[in-house]
Amino acid sequence: MTDRPSLASLGAASPFSRRHIGPSAHDVATMLEVVGQPSVEELLTAALPATIRLTGPDATLDLPPALSEPEATEQLRHLAARNRPMTQMIGLGYYGTITPPVVRRNVLESPAWYTAYTPYQPEISQGRLEALLNFQTVVSDLTGLPVSGASLLDEATAAAEAMTLARRAGKKLGTDTFVVDADIHPQTLAVLQTRAEPLGIRVLVSDLAELPDEPYFGLLLQYPGSSGALRDPSALIAAAHERGALVTVAADLLGLCLLKSPAELGADIAVGSAQRFGVPLGFGGPHAGYMAVAEKLARSLPGRLVGVSRDAAGAPAYRLALQTREQHIRREKATSNICTAQVLLAVMAGAYAVWHGPEGLRQIALRTHRMTAVLAAGLRQLPGATVATDAFFDTVRVTVPGRADDVLATAAAAGVNLLRVDADTVGVSCDETTTVEHLRAVWTAVGSDSTAFDVSGLDVSTLDVQTADAIPDTLVRTSGYLEHPVFAEHRSETAMLRYLRRLSDRDYALDRGMIPLGSCTMKLNATTEMEPVSWPEFANIHPFAPVEQTAGYGAMIGDLERWLAEVTGYDAVSLQPNAGSQGEFAGLLAIRSYHRGRGETHRDVCLIPSSAHGTNAASAVMAGLRVAVVACDDAGNVDLSDLRAKIDAHRDDLAALMVTYPSTHGVYEETITEVCALVHDAGGQVYVDGANLNALLGFAKPGKFGADVSHLNLHKTFCIPHGGGGPGIGPVAVRSHLAPYLPNHPLRADAGPATGPGPVSAAPWGSAGILPVPWVYLRLMGAEGLVAATGAAVLAANYVAARLRDHFPVLYAGTGGLVAHECILDLRPLTKSTGVTVDDVAKRLIDYGFHAPTMSFPVAGTLMVEPTESEDLAELDRFCDAMIAIRAEIASVADGTWPADDNPLVNAPHTATMVTGEWEHPYARDLGAYPAGRTADKYWPPVRRIDGAFGDRNLVCSCPAPEAFATT
Amino acid sequence: MTDRPSLASLGAASPFSRRHIGPSAHDVATMLEVVGQPSVEELLTAALPATIRLTGPDATLDLPPALSEPEATEQLRHLAARNRPMTQMIGLGYYGTITPPVVRRNVLESPAWYTAYTPYQPEISQGRLEALLNFQTVVSDLTGLPVSGASLLDEATAAAEAMTLARRAGKKLGTDTFVVDADIHPQTLAVLQTRAEPLGIRVLVSDLAELPDEPYFGLLLQYPGSSGALRDPSALIAAAHERGALVTVAADLLGLCLLKSPAELGADIAVGSAQRFGVPLGFGGPHAGYMAVAEKLARSLPGRLVGVSRDAAGAPAYRLALQTREQHIRREKATSNICTAQVLLAVMAGAYAVWHGPEGLRQIALRTHRMTAVLAAGLRQLPGATVATDAFFDTVRVTVPGRADDVLATAAAAGVNLLRVDADTVGVSCDETTTVEHLRAVWTAVGSDSTAFDVSGLDVSTLDVQTADAIPDTLVRTSGYLEHPVFAEHRSETAMLRYLRRLSDRDYALDRGMIPLGSCTMKLNATTEMEPVSWPEFANIHPFAPVEQTAGYGAMIGDLERWLAEVTGYDAVSLQPNAGSQGEFAGLLAIRSYHRGRGETHRDVCLIPSSAHGTNAASAVMAGLRVAVVACDDAGNVDLSDLRAKIDAHRDDLAALMVTYPSTHGVYEETITEVCALVHDAGGQVYVDGANLNALLGFAKPGKFGADVSHLNLHKTFCIPHGGGGPGIGPVAVRSHLAPYLPNHPLRADAGPATGPGPVSAAPWGSAGILPVPWVYLRLMGAEGLVAATGAAVLAANYVAARLRDHFPVLYAGTGGLVAHECILDLRPLTKSTGVTVDDVAKRLIDYGFHAPTMSFPVAGTLMVEPTESEDLAELDRFCDAMIAIRAEIASVADGTWPADDNPLVNAPHTATMVTGEWEHPYARDLGAYPAGRTADKYWPPVRRIDGAFGDRNLVCSCPAPEAFATT
Repeated sequence: MTDRPSLASLGAASPFSRRHIGPSAHDVATMLEVVGQPSVEELLTAALPATIRLTGPDATLDLPPALSEPEATEQLRHLAARNRPMTQMIGLGYYGTITPPVVRRNVLESPAWYTAYTPYQPEISQGRLEALLNFQTVVSDLTGLPVSGASLLDEATAAAEAMTLARRAGKKLGTDTFVVDADIHPQTLAVLQTRAEPLGIRVLVSDLAELPDEPYFGLLLQYPGSSGALRDPSALIAAAHERGALVTVAADLLGLCLLKSPAELGADIAVGSAQRFGVPLGFGGPHAGYMAVAEKLARSLPGRLVGVSRDAAGAPAYRLALQTREQHIRREKATSNICTAQVLLAVMAGAYAVWHGPEGLRQIALRTHRMTAVLAAGLRQLPGATVATDAFFDTVRVTVPGRADDVLATAAAAGVNLLRVDADTVGVSCDETTTVEHLRAVWTAVGSDSTAFDVSGLDVSTLDVQTADAIPDTLVRTSGYLEHPVFAEHRSETAMLRYLRRLSDRDYALDRGMIPLGSCTMKLNATTEMEPVSWPEFANIHPFAPVEQTAGYGAMIGDLERWLAEVTGYDAVSLQPNAGSQGEFAGLLAIRSYHRGRGETHRDVCLIPSSAHGTNAASAVMAGLRVAVVACDDAGNVDLSDLRAKIDAHRDDLAALMVTYPSTHGVYEETITEVCALVHDAGGQVYVDGANLNALLGFAKPGKFGADVSHLNLHKTFCIPHGGGGPGIGPVAVRSHLAPYLPNHPLRADAGPATGPGPVSAAPWGSAGILPVPWVYLRLMGAEGLVAATGAAVLAANYVAARLRDHFPVLYAGTGGLVAHECILDLRPLTKSTGVTVDDVAKRLIDYGFHAPTMSFPVAGTLMVEPTESEDLAELDRFCDAMIAIRAEIASVADGTWPADDNPLVNAPHTATMVTGEWEHPYARDLGAYPAGRTADKYWPPVRRIDGAFGDRNLVCSCPAPEAFATT
Repeated sequence: MTDRPSLASLGAASPFSRRHIGPSAHDVATMLEVVGQPSVEELLTAALPATIRLTGPDATLDLPPALSEPEATEQLRHLAARNRPMTQMIGLGYYGTITPPVVRRNVLESPAWYTAYTPYQPEISQGRLEALLNFQTVVSDLTGLPVSGASLLDEATAAAEAMTLARRAGKKLGTDTFVVDADIHPQTLAVLQTRAEPLGIRVLVSDLAELPDEPYFGLLLQYPGSSGALRDPSALIAAAHERGALVTVAADLLGLCLLKSPAELGADIAVGSAQRFGVPLGFGGPHAGYMAVAEKLARSLPGRLVGVSRDAAGAPAYRLALQTREQHIRREKATSNICTAQVLLAVMAGAYAVWHGPEGLRQIALRTHRMTAVLAAGLRQLPGATVATDAFFDTVRVTVPGRADDVLATAAAAGVNLLRVDADTVGVSCDETTTVEHLRAVWTAVGSDSTAFDVSGLDVSTLDVQTADAIPDTLVRTSGYLEHPVFAEHRSETAMLRYLRRLSDRDYALDRGMIPLGSCTMKLNATTEMEPVSWPEFANIHPFAPVEQTAGYGAMIGDLERWLAEVTGYDAVSLQPNAGSQGEFAGLLAIRSYHRGRGETHRDVCLIPSSAHGTNAASAVMAGLRVAVVACDDAGNVDLSDLRAKIDAHRDDLAALMVTYPSTHGVYEETITEVCALVHDAGGQVYVDGANLNALLGFAKPGKFGADVSHLNLHKTFCIPHGGGGPGIGPVAVRSHLAPYLPNHPLRADAGPATGPGPVSAAPWGSAGILPVPWVYLRLMGAEGLVAATGAAVLAANYVAARLRDHFPVLYAGTGGLVAHECILDLRPLTKSTGVTVDDVAKRLIDYGFHAPTMSFPVAGTLMVEPTESEDLAELDRFCDAMIAIRAEIASVADGTWPADDNPLVNAPHTATMVTGEWEHPYARDLGAYPAGRTADKYWPPVRRIDGAFGDRNLVCSCPAPEAFATT
């Protein structure tokens, strides 16, 4: 009886961390043996510099104890219950919408979509690339502008990108002035100002009664205006063009179903949000922002762009186009620091358009407009209220002298949120979800002080008949849109379900196998973490809802800020940045503001090691810093002597050093504390890019080993799914002296310090709607789980390095030949001797049933592998076996068994149509298709290797005609 | 302005029915042209006999108006809020359980699993067949009995099946007595009694202090007892065996993780429920019942059995084994009327075991037991309470003289439901979800009248240390289980996710394409219908929870009973039968009871047309009726002269005619009203099998055109997904004179009339947990939507018939050559002339990307096609094109282009490994694989054609060793 396990031990023996971490205790023992370490603890001791390792009481993270999955769900339900989903008529760019249930279940809630990576391997990403092409076609058709990107982070940052694009294009005008419509959404204006200041751009707000009589490089108009007002901007646009300025129209996509397109009005650029195309409000995000541009600006477009090219058999195939524009290539010369997109949300918005088709969207727009027209007609009959908007699409302002707060309170009591403009004015926006009952609630609230008028007497049908549309004739759209068959073919739920499945079946995501991407930490996105994202209490909250309705979000955000500060060793955290790139910008802005706050305005040099991710440099430029590159030594570490030299050279104007830790080479650099000290001694701040935090959590804290600021990637270390390339959250964490300079928000005082530089995202807490994921992850793992995860991740990387070292050189390693959480396999010698490239190996891995590791970053000609803690030993071995088998295939090319231009590597990936068709290759069909043995469970890539350059030369960025796919 | 659409019309223009029904208005016009009818209305007028067509005010179904999807969800949320999920410690065979979230999302909520059909086409069902084999292995390992079926409907009906099996096996004993343990679950006993009575079986309940000293053919023991009591039944079993009786043990699967298996105790048969293996309570179902038997009884096992066989290449492959036992072959001589299983739930239970593995299950069982032991130890310290159970696994009874109701009320106020045994006794069951807080709640409730004892003084850790296990030594399990690698390999969520995806990817379900199964109505299972099934307010309700906690279910059930009565024209409906077969039994039982109620006990003949589904005859036998077959004429209709002759022959003892309408031949028989009148005139009752109700809804009502009783199939006409072969619900609907004989239930007085024959399912409302599906469907469609759906279904069948008639004879048709909602394609002439069989065509359809239609039912050598209303014209055309292309392939066999024994038809289906390997066939590889043109979206079957007979000769019904799958 005494050896019976206790009740307590029986309950705790199956913690979530055992489900999150792939290797079993038995697997771990096997792996340690291969790595040659007695325990995970000793492995970390050997790998991690003692100078940064947490010891003593600091080594225990102060986090609440791990919960079981049902317990975490239960606790989160309590938080959720403190949010109040309402009928959201606040507007300001965020609207009620109906997510088609077939899209919710089969995209938002489907691992095949949400666990996918950014489509850098286009051959195994054709499904989401087609879905993104649908999105681009929607944006392009509705705006009338031919080139649309695959989504940006939100409307406000899209507007900021348009501003900098216009500035680049208008450099010759010699002016720093950007004119902005006074009727812009307030958060857009605030983000513009945040972004303009470090770049020396002057934002000139104008009511546009007439254009300012001075030079300006760009003009931004809101259409319809934030107030709801519609005006014909054609003349203004023409006038701005005469000045040589580019004109951006921030346009509402649903409105564009009835309104003349920005292109028809003359705009060069259109930006906006696709939120109301079926994407839940989520307290402000994540949603897909959009940007479309005129042909001439295509190569200046920031962010991802999907285009059509062709594969090795000449068949049409999709891939990311014009990547040379991007920050990972152009670094500080990039057009933007945007690294990711909002793919999952763009897929949803595109699917919403596929589901409704042009006539369905038009009807939704028409109904929304008629609701607003009838609403306004009723309001006009109310004594004591004046409708201040004559021409409108979906929003009106109502003057209720002195009564705005009362009106809001009455409406809220009826379950409806309105916009408080000022003490005398409220705003009301209609949308797809608006019903006659909602109109009545608004009328009742506005008319509540009057005993002279009986609101119940207002008859909707009568008002409907009596009331004309409120769209001026000159703005009525006559041009068509969404005429591609894809927007007509999937109208029944059965057809839509099959279309979504067909698309996702073309892709390889984590639900099929390992995605060993260096630095991208493709680990488990657990169901328990994902499920709450769909709960109405999180999904249906407007970002500008009254504070008392968002207490659940408030508590969750408070928890996360505290926990993230604890695990990183910082003092304060902002969850506002909705991507890592935005976190970088916010962090560098804090450094800049700090120096300026101390009167050291001259400090504007940011040192960045040559191995850094390109986004670092691009972000530094955005934050108004000058980039100076620090060399790396032969071991891949920051070259201390070069660092000293650069510090000396910039001692007076040194603002910051920006460094990734462990390094992008996957190594724990021993010198990190010394590096930090050198920078501090010179008056600089240390920015540690948190991309590789998965190698540190629970063992070291950047905020304690010398860094002043970091951004984290919640979609890397904290389990937000990659979604095929977004959503992401890039919180910024700082030591206390930088805390006053964290982002804040004009519409939510509690979103940041009053002393902050303004917002970097449209919503107060960016992509708040997916914060349940890291919240649940941290609650499920607890301190011990996080430590175990880090240990398992480092062990897995060292295991892969140990198994593959004899076959491919492992490029960099730290003490004792150990790597951190990833390792770089050097292909260059083999390429030199055989002609087989990293591309060939990456594509051949598809035949073996894998997503390729990161290619040629941070070192050209190499593969970087990050296995993460979530892959079990069987999958790690499957990968290592595949790599070793590929090495043998390379040997067969080297020894002449196969010619260099016709072998399984250069022909990879092999499609089913290829291996069942004509066959004149010097190896068997099944060796092409089944190099790891025949299996009924094989993933077949839908296309052969894609010719990216062809597509860049022949740019096609919207849905190609169906004839292009005619079977041959 | 006057031609502007009204606001009201804009809202109503996109009803759900447009999403449910596949063909667009344009499609419908095209289809009508091919069919040669001016409108759907006129098509139905031409096809449907005027004698049954609803006219005038009757033609409008009295249903609430159609709601939009968000409105229906909102209304259902209100109903759901009236249910109170509690901690359910009631027991009686239903326990709290934790559905692994990865299983919930990727099985229960995944269309790839829930839209699948019964695996009659095993080549495209290998995923769910493997999942079912896992389930069978779990049951077989835990019970120790070698042959487990792929699930039965619930524990009580499984016990009833065991009773009839034992009777068949023990015929030579010459006794009708079946001995049942008095400590059996009360609902099991009640179902046994319902089922025993018509068969003349005497159920002898015994406390088993000793065995009755008289002959009996079987003995049924509950293990552990319903009261929780554990006793060693080995001696009883041995004694029963000496008598020649078979012994069935109704065993708790979780208990068996710690307890000696039924086989080790000597049992011949084990039955039970797999509910607590991760399947939500759902107010009683659906759950997987199980049955396992000794080797000698394998061929007597009722229901589906998955076995291992081999494919044309000799590779292992799964398929349904020993189908010749089943009702569709053996009709009235079948071992059971069981037609379907609970596949989706069995898959979940099997996945739960895969997820936890043997050590995980053991730990859950151990923890459950320790909780119970500590609970009992605490209870023993309470004054005024006596623990009545000494040896137990998870349940104890507590004597609290006169205070049971108070104790229950106090516990309920703390959120815990207990079992009320009688005024002096309560029962408490622990399970996987039990926490120390729950124990405290029970102690507090039981100790609530005492001021002498402070419950808060009970220390769980101390009690835990002090308290021994309560499992007698002789019953402690020492044998292993779940030693197959599948129960060890998928322990991380990542691994499990991939395993579930891999399995589902092997299968073809509605999310890939059409499943044109005659009479099985594979139509859309809409997301909005499915989502509420996962809501905790529906999922976490115990079937015997107090009435006041289940008001939401009550209201939903009330709505459904009313609406189903309205659409069928009957007066009363019972939702209790949890499969169509059980509905048949319940309906026939009502007829039997009715005659007996009138003193006409001699009426025991049931006329059944030769075309009837085999289940009809099997059900009639179960209901104590003798079957007489009525011939069909050459047109496939009931032969009226033979009917008259049979009625004459059985005029005095005629109980019923059982007929399907429209007929199983897919034809609206003109004579139906006459048929009904003839039977009524002879004093018989008319049973209309509602399998084909999808061809009638809104146009005719069986209850109005002459029938007295029908069962419906909610998984056919009312959108409950087939789930790969269950769940199903088979409500029985009757005219008022039969209403007193509908099923009822001993534990819920409101579940049926007091005059009823007892329950036919374990739970009061059978599979209540999926009733949200038909509720939402009916709320979304409204009367107009249902009418439109029926019209579209009939149009689609006639369109297919019209397009294919010139290529394959359409075997039967009604007036004007029209069919109802399905059509039979006659392959027999072609088979005779070419040797190409229906099998060949069915398997070749896989290569074309289709699930085959129903094969050889109701006529051997034919295919029956039911396209349903949910397939759009593009998919219908794709199917017709495939059939026409196959006809051309048959022609190539006929003209000698291809030999009869080596052509794309006999070799179908073609796997990827086949077409990439050696190839010596007289046609090209790609013709084999891509007969409809090359496509990257091809579905590849995982195995070649399966040799069913081989598997029947070499029966293997649990997971085969991994070596069997070694790649060659």
